[in-house]
Amino acid sequence: MLPGVGVFGTGKLLEAVVPHLRSLGFRVVALWGQTLEDAGNVAGSLHIDYFTSRIDDVLLHKDVDLVLVLSPPSLQSQIAVKAMGIGKHVVCDRPAGLCQSELLKMVLAAQYYPSLLSVVGYGLRYLPAVRQLRQAVRDGYVGDVRLVEVRVTCGSLLEGAGYSWLCEPAMGGGLLSLIGSGVVDLVSHVIGQRARRVHGTLRTYTRQTRLIAGIRHVGSDDFCTFQMEMDGGALVTVSLNAHLSGLQQEVVVCGDWGHLTDGQYVAAVLEAVRVSAATQAWTQVNIRSRMLETNYLGMALKAADA
Amino acid sequence: MLPGVGVFGTGKLLEAVVPHLRSLGFRVVALWGQTLEDAGNVAGSLHIDYFTSRIDDVLLHKDVDLVLVLSPPSLQSQIAVKAMGIGKHVVCDRPAGLCQSELLKMVLAAQYYPSLLSVVGYGLRYLPAVRQLRQAVRDGYVGDVRLVEVRVTCGSLLEGAGYSWLCEPAMGGGLLSLIGSGVVDLVSHVIGQRARRVHGTLRTYTRQTRLIAGIRHVGSDDFCTFQMEMDGGALVTVSLNAHLSGLQQEVVVCGDWGHLTDGQYVAAVLEAVRVSAATQAWTQVNIRSRMLETNYLGMALKAADA
Repeated sequence: MLPGVGVFGTGKLLEAVVPHLRSLGFRVVALWGQTLEDAGNVAGSLHIDYFTSRIDDVLLHKDVDLVLVLSPPSLQSQIAVKAMGIGKHVVCDRPAGLCQSELLKMVLAAQYYPSLLSVVGYGLRYLPAVRQLRQAVRDGYVGDVRLVEVRVTCGSLLEGAGYSWLCEPAMGGGLLSLIGSGVVDLVSHVIGQRARRVHGTLRTYTRQTRLIAGIRHVGSDDFCTFQMEMDGGALVTVSLNAHLSGLQQEVVVCGDWGHLTDGQYVAAVLEAVRVSAATQAWTQVNIRSRMLETNYLGMALKAADA
Repeated sequence: MLPGVGVFGTGKLLEAVVPHLRSLGFRVVALWGQTLEDAGNVAGSLHIDYFTSRIDDVLLHKDVDLVLVLSPPSLQSQIAVKAMGIGKHVVCDRPAGLCQSELLKMVLAAQYYPSLLSVVGYGLRYLPAVRQLRQAVRDGYVGDVRLVEVRVTCGSLLEGAGYSWLCEPAMGGGLLSLIGSGVVDLVSHVIGQRARRVHGTLRTYTRQTRLIAGIRHVGSDDFCTFQMEMDGGALVTVSLNAHLSGLQQEVVVCGDWGHLTDGQYVAAVLEAVRVSAATQAWTQVNIRSRMLETNYLGMALKAADA
């Protein structure tokens, strides 16, 4: 039987996640929100019977066997560690915690009960375009990977919102934390190499908005660029820019045999251009974040069921 | 009367430059090539009466009043300095020399005879899209400039060529020298700020090609990324990648009021999107290098005539 699900968080993501979970046959039995009012509102609109603002009430709920941690990053680690300590499966959103020590605690907790499902939801991995990209790199289409260029442009992450943890880097806000963490995982996942040396620059240009114009101001980064030297010799350069509009991601992988980008696979050595139906899909991978998140959750949950 | 022109160099650029000069009413009277054979071939096909492989023969030619330096970068500084020393106008291709000391000599020579025309041909400035971009930035369309992202992708600069100065960074080869120098100028030109601190990474991945497969190998960079902190507070991030195909340049300028990119001017503060016919032209500025070079030469020469 599928496990009962307890959800931590009240973000917009839930509007997509909860119906998707139900369509997969899961029962969503409990919801946690930072305030009882938040929790009540979301539980009401999503028809979840039980809601609370106390973490333990969800964790100890007798019908909750799987915990979805979609709370602010500063709470994720403690919730996940506690849940695993009392024998519940955990799927946690990225970033999994605020710092290495928090993540380490989660890894240790996950190792203690190997039979428990413990997944950090790096959803980009499950985008069809990324899976094809990874397969093509593994099949040797580009040869040895030399360069990866990733560029993500979006509008302000604070659009239309008041002051919250998103404004505070120490609470997990900012481009590097929220998007960069996924990109780092994406690159390692696609090319199978891990970072050895890193250099980067963060900038916070928008310190006040219409809705955040009091004493407090925004401290989290709205521009980020970094380079990673990978252990297999590849160089990765990433640029994240929240000063544009829309949401667009482009990943270019160059190897000694050719490159994968914008729907074309060019084998420079073979001096032939082959465009297959499969590679067409790479054209400007547009992330639809909701779709994406539900996808990865769906997959993780299917794994839990198996 | 328009000055007689002496040309240094035998590259493909000449096929565009010489006819353009003539269409503007200039006489091209002398050509220099690294070997007499090269010079003879190009002079023959372009119907230039006098050709030589000795620098002084062109410089001292009685009908040469304006010198176009399109030679390999390692020779440019000495030719330009010598030409200015004997009272000839000079238009020199970028990069103007191999290092700061060479450039300094050129600047000193240019200051010695202020009446002489002395121009380094940063041709990107004269692209219509770049001129519009600059005007819009000056008109305050984006507000204070915070970020500039420049991305140039192209195929190998060594495509179909044997070993030459292009393979050797000490001779002026490589992306940073040939394209980066123009980009640095472009950014300063558009936003009116100069670099204060710089961090960058160069990579040479293609060390041998089909035509360069002997003892010698390529040492010049085929990937380059750098960030510049400008004196007005803007951050510039540049990525030059010669592992793709075609030639494409994209410049994004973000300010506190909005950004200019891909044909759209978004004023975030005004919460209004205005797309004018003029800004449409920014869509993916494609550099057509020949057109471009002839443009800047044409403009420089008109200035010389005035």
